[in-house]
Amino acid sequence: MMGRPSTQYSLYLVLDPDHTASDPITIAAEALDNGVTCVQLRWKSATDRQVVDLARSIHQLTEPRHIPLIVNDRLDIALAVEAEGVHLGVDDLPLRDARRIAGESFIIGYSPEADDQIVDAEQAGASYLGIGPFSGTVTKSNAGPALRATEFARRRSLTDLPVVAIGGMTANNAAQAFAAGADGIAVASAILGASDPVEATRRLRAALPGRL
Amino acid sequence: MMGRPSTQYSLYLVLDPDHTASDPITIAAEALDNGVTCVQLRWKSATDRQVVDLARSIHQLTEPRHIPLIVNDRLDIALAVEAEGVHLGVDDLPLRDARRIAGESFIIGYSPEADDQIVDAEQAGASYLGIGPFSGTVTKSNAGPALRATEFARRRSLTDLPVVAIGGMTANNAAQAFAAGADGIAVASAILGASDPVEATRRLRAALPGRL
Repeated sequence: MMGRPSTQYSLYLVLDPDHTASDPITIAAEALDNGVTCVQLRWKSATDRQVVDLARSIHQLTEPRHIPLIVNDRLDIALAVEAEGVHLGVDDLPLRDARRIAGESFIIGYSPEADDQIVDAEQAGASYLGIGPFSGTVTKSNAGPALRATEFARRRSLTDLPVVAIGGMTANNAAQAFAAGADGIAVASAILGASDPVEATRRLRAALPGRL
Repeated sequence: MMGRPSTQYSLYLVLDPDHTASDPITIAAEALDNGVTCVQLRWKSATDRQVVDLARSIHQLTEPRHIPLIVNDRLDIALAVEAEGVHLGVDDLPLRDARRIAGESFIIGYSPEADDQIVDAEQAGASYLGIGPFSGTVTKSNAGPALRATEFARRRSLTDLPVVAIGGMTANNAAQAFAAGADGIAVASAILGASDPVEATRRLRAALPGRL
């Protein structure tokens, strides 16, 4: 279903304008120029029209760099801006419906919450999973208790899909996540909240295993 | 683009579970059996998954009766449940994108707020317009001042699309709206808040012009 290199999700930026200290488009451009391999746009406080407009602007940055843009929650907005993917949670559009609507080559990320949801996700149409919170997170208020490496590794072992570790990821705990089986780390505040997003992205990039 | 009878929107139920006194599926069934010609599902407080599930249940009622089901705001949910249409506002997905994604035969309703939005709507892909609030509304808190018949008629004259009058519609002001050029009336509380939804629907049905 995927046929994409495993490096695709290695340094995955969750761009959330509600948590950026400065202009989100500038931060995205800086992060893309310094090693981010995937961008998800998440903007809960905006109108749909605002998300569409920002997504189009971000897509103009990602597309020439062959970096996938993934829209959080909203398949309709992802299709409207011709993004490469959507990311769904267990309370969102069902995976099977999203896969049927979007077709085989579309990226569909999924955040399972229970073991059976992890096990069933590939069959239901997910392209990759986000599993977390790996550590404490400041960006998502209802993320639940931190999994830490042992529980992350156990959940990761339940699927053959690529898995991105999310929630409190930093340059300091990246090695732990990859050792626990992560194919990538998803970061928000580590870049969005940094005083120097360029330097923060470079430090995260340097913390990835050599193969990525 | 439409090729549908003009009676399609004549008695248009906006089904909003946040404003129903009893089970929304029961109310929908009663309204459908007593003259409603179109159903929109609007449920702002629910998760996407809850809207998907309820929309599927409502579609099982509407489809055998050849009544269109229209999902408020969300084209992805409309496509997921194979509804007949979506209804968009000016802060939602752009009409042109929705039309491109959904194809020519899909119903796309639109609620314009300014004259140029009314004038441009047909070209942008709208199938019909909702114009209001015709009278005072209790269901939508931010609907703005009532247009009344004269201003409704002026706005209605700006487009050749079918126009549904919405906002405070009752059996008592229905004749006014049709005289002002409405092709249909959209009702929420007049049915949802009625002590007897069957009788309320029949009274609305009886208030429609003879040709409908």
